[in-house]
Amino acid sequence: MITISAFRRVPPFAQGLVRDMRLRWALEEAGLPYRVRLIDPEIQASAEYRALQPFGQVPVFGEDGFSLFESGSILLHIAARSETLLPADPVKRARATTWVFAALNSMEIRIEPLAGIDLFHADKAWAKERRPEAEAAVKRRLADLAFWLGDRDYLEDSFTAGALMMTTVLRVLRHTDLVKEVPRLAAYQARCEARSAFKRALAAHMADPGLA
Amino acid sequence: MITISAFRRVPPFAQGLVRDMRLRWALEEAGLPYRVRLIDPEIQASAEYRALQPFGQVPVFGEDGFSLFESGSILLHIAARSETLLPADPVKRARATTWVFAALNSMEIRIEPLAGIDLFHADKAWAKERRPEAEAAVKRRLADLAFWLGDRDYLEDSFTAGALMMTTVLRVLRHTDLVKEVPRLAAYQARCEARSAFKRALAAHMADPGLA
Repeated sequence: MITISAFRRVPPFAQGLVRDMRLRWALEEAGLPYRVRLIDPEIQASAEYRALQPFGQVPVFGEDGFSLFESGSILLHIAARSETLLPADPVKRARATTWVFAALNSMEIRIEPLAGIDLFHADKAWAKERRPEAEAAVKRRLADLAFWLGDRDYLEDSFTAGALMMTTVLRVLRHTDLVKEVPRLAAYQARCEARSAFKRALAAHMADPGLA
Repeated sequence: MITISAFRRVPPFAQGLVRDMRLRWALEEAGLPYRVRLIDPEIQASAEYRALQPFGQVPVFGEDGFSLFESGSILLHIAARSETLLPADPVKRARATTWVFAALNSMEIRIEPLAGIDLFHADKAWAKERRPEAEAAVKRRLADLAFWLGDRDYLEDSFTAGALMMTTVLRVLRHTDLVKEVPRLAAYQARCEARSAFKRALAAHMADPGLA
C-alpha cells in the first residue's frame, strides 16, 4: 500500500496548494489507492522523519519499505505506472519529464519568491521595494509559457505529468490576477483542473488537514 | 550526434556555473561525444530558439531531430545511458532521481535568491535588508544536507546523477564561505569535482565562451 505524508494543520492561504496535492492528483490519475500520514511540527523535526525527508518537508512517498522524497521525483515515480501521465513512447515520455522540470525550475523558481513576498513579507520595506521586479519576472515567464502554448490544449499533445505539475504551480498565483490576465493560461489551468482526478485529489486534500 | 547549447559570452562571475556544465559533465561521465552550439542574445530571443527552449535559456539538448530543454530533464535523459549516473536497479535509480530534484528544488531554490542578491543587487536597500534571512535559509538547507550525508562519501551508496546535480548547485555558493563552513559538504564537493569527467567538462566549458 502506498503512503504519502501531508501536514495535519494547514493555514487557509496554503490549503489546496501544499505539495501532497501533486501526489494525490497523480495517484488518482493512475488509479492507485493510498493512505495519508498526517504530520505535525514535532514529527517534521524528528530524526525518524528526517531519515525519510532530509529537509523535514512534505510529501514523503512510501511503499513496501521503499521511500522517496521531492514531489517532482515522486510524481515521475507514480507517473511511470500511468500511460496518461508518462506515455510509453520514449520521445513523449522525455518531453513530459521536461515539462515537470520546467514547471518547477523555470516557473516555480520565479513564482515562489513573489508568493513569499505577498504571503509572508508584504508589510516589510524590502518586500515593497522588491515586489515590482519579482512580479515582472513572473509575468515574463507566464508570457513565454502562453507563447509556447499558443492554440494548443496542452503543453504537448496531451495531458501528462508535465501538465499536472504546471497546473499545481500556476495555482500558487491564485492570490493574484496574473494568470487571469493571460486568458490562454487561465483556460489551460481550468482545463486541467476540470479533470475528475484533480477534483477527487483536492477534496481529499481539503478533508484531511485541520485549520492551522 | 548530440548537440547542446551554451552562451557565446559569459561574464567571469558565471564562468564555470552556467547550466551547460551539468550536461557536459554528464556527457563526459557517460562517454558520449557532443557538439556545442554557442548562442548570443539575438539567437536567444529568436522564434527558432524559442521553439526549442520556450524561456530562451540554455541548455538545449538535440539529437537526431529530437530536442529537450531543462538541465534536470536532460541530465536524466543522458544519465539513462550511464550505469554510473543512473543505476539499473529501480530503487537506486529512483533515489538518484530524487536527489536530482532535491538539488534543484530544495537547495537551488534557496541558493539562487542569495546568489541573486550578492551578484546583481548587493548595493540595493532591499537586498541589504533581505540578505540575512536569505543566507539563513541557505544555511539551514546546508546543515540539513550535511546531517543527511553524515560520514558517507555520497548522498546514496555511490556517485550518481543526483551527486552531479548537487555539486553543480553547491558551486553556485563559491562567492561565499557557506560551503567551506560545513567541512563535510566542502569535502563532498571536492570529492565529486575530483572526477576526471568533471575536469574535462569544466575545461571545455571554460574554453568555449568569450568574456561577456
